[in-house]
Amino acid sequence: MTRTVYLNGEYLPETEAKVSIFDRSFLMADGVYEVTSVLEGKLIDFDGHLARLERSLNELDMEKPEAFDDLLEIHRKLVELNDIDEGMIYLQVSRGSAGDRDFVFPDPEVVKPTLVLFTQSKPGLANNPVAQKGLKVISIEDIRWGRRDIKTVQLLYPSMGKMAAKKAGCDDAWLVEDGHVTEGTSNNAYIVKGGTIITRDLSSDILHGITRAAVLRFAREAQMTVEERPFTIEEAQGADEAFVTSASTFVMPVVEIDGAKVGAGEPGPVAKRLREIYLEESIKSGI
Amino acid sequence: MTRTVYLNGEYLPETEAKVSIFDRSFLMADGVYEVTSVLEGKLIDFDGHLARLERSLNELDMEKPEAFDDLLEIHRKLVELNDIDEGMIYLQVSRGSAGDRDFVFPDPEVVKPTLVLFTQSKPGLANNPVAQKGLKVISIEDIRWGRRDIKTVQLLYPSMGKMAAKKAGCDDAWLVEDGHVTEGTSNNAYIVKGGTIITRDLSSDILHGITRAAVLRFAREAQMTVEERPFTIEEAQGADEAFVTSASTFVMPVVEIDGAKVGAGEPGPVAKRLREIYLEESIKSGI
Repeated sequence: MTRTVYLNGEYLPETEAKVSIFDRSFLMADGVYEVTSVLEGKLIDFDGHLARLERSLNELDMEKPEAFDDLLEIHRKLVELNDIDEGMIYLQVSRGSAGDRDFVFPDPEVVKPTLVLFTQSKPGLANNPVAQKGLKVISIEDIRWGRRDIKTVQLLYPSMGKMAAKKAGCDDAWLVEDGHVTEGTSNNAYIVKGGTIITRDLSSDILHGITRAAVLRFAREAQMTVEERPFTIEEAQGADEAFVTSASTFVMPVVEIDGAKVGAGEPGPVAKRLREIYLEESIKSGI
Repeated sequence: MTRTVYLNGEYLPETEAKVSIFDRSFLMADGVYEVTSVLEGKLIDFDGHLARLERSLNELDMEKPEAFDDLLEIHRKLVELNDIDEGMIYLQVSRGSAGDRDFVFPDPEVVKPTLVLFTQSKPGLANNPVAQKGLKVISIEDIRWGRRDIKTVQLLYPSMGKMAAKKAGCDDAWLVEDGHVTEGTSNNAYIVKGGTIITRDLSSDILHGITRAAVLRFAREAQMTVEERPFTIEEAQGADEAFVTSASTFVMPVVEIDGAKVGAGEPGPVAKRLREIYLEESIKSGI
């Protein structure tokens, strides 16, 4: 089935959705994005993603796309047109195309942002069998730029990290800066020790995960102890459990780090419980 | 006049040159580029740019585009079709479009790189009046990723740096990391003190400028002393001269740094002389 995607006001077959070679996301990674999950045909944490999108745009002095106020409607229409029950909706705002290449931002009165959305159907996303097995991760140095709190399309290094993990026979990579884990290539990282959930505190070093915020809220509501601080790979390897969170994997256990089993080397009870709570609560509040 | 640009084997009007929204340069900055200058209708330092392109592709495990061996011919054809006497040719290789979004690199047997080239006509480039006046620069923190030796399209921060300079009433920004200047937003940075040319040594901290290599060679041939080492903003402010080099600005004097005049606050003799030599020699060896 050919997907229908959204591009600057039009709903198009995916093969016809094209942008100018002068689009600033193509030429200089001048764009931001969001990924919203769909479960039972409903949008998960939509308001959180919309708020973060607005923040990313603000941080980069980028204009809101004209259709900003219609984004909920566009998301819903894409879910309907593509018959998505479980999956994701990807959204990108680029600063647009000035018809030439220049480091200087184009005049926002003249050059309008490019807005792209497309769906990815992932049947079985909620009951992902990977969650039963857990992920094996490697650690690599975090050499990304310093504003990881802005969700830009500068994803080359995370992409290289996934490839390095794949080559090592693993599923993902955790990024380490100054001896401490920042996050995973496309997720926030956590460990559990003696019942306490430990995850790095928010700063420009990491993405302010929408799923992270929800999971920590649910954890605190369930009377779990949460400690927001950096941790090392050694501490993670010696933890009882480890896991990651993201919009498309929800809560995903990590069972091995750089070849060392975490705890019993299988998904732990805290990660399992948080995954259950997150799925239950987020489907309940999905729109 | 509508430019004719090159896209994956075709010569197209610039308004018709479009790439898929799934192109990896658009979605995740997975692309590399080069800019070659044209003077008197000839390509400047073409072999150097080609060699660096090949290195960038290798560093990212990216396939050469099918037309790699025809790049000289394509450059020349674009110069001819667009009647370029002075200007630049921009070239970008993207890892291509797999028709969907995934952090994992697509199979290079299946997904071919996207190759784009376009011209920018800049009459008066060699006799740029800015070279008579010199540039005013500000310094900003260098928060880019750690592999600046690979010429990727992750140019958002350099672009933000140019905007910060513009807002401050200046022309460009010098990037500072751990107290030392790395380079300019799109050029290598130099100071001159007591007749010695000082510029940061090559590493993954800076771009290995093609113009930098040529200028340092010419400087040494002219019996000037060159010292390759990091320097601070304070040292630069106290220098006799400062300048930058790049493929499109050649050698460009810097006369002010963070509001402090460098030397007499006007282009110095070393920068002027190196600009003359570079233009003369590179036009002579242009192809």
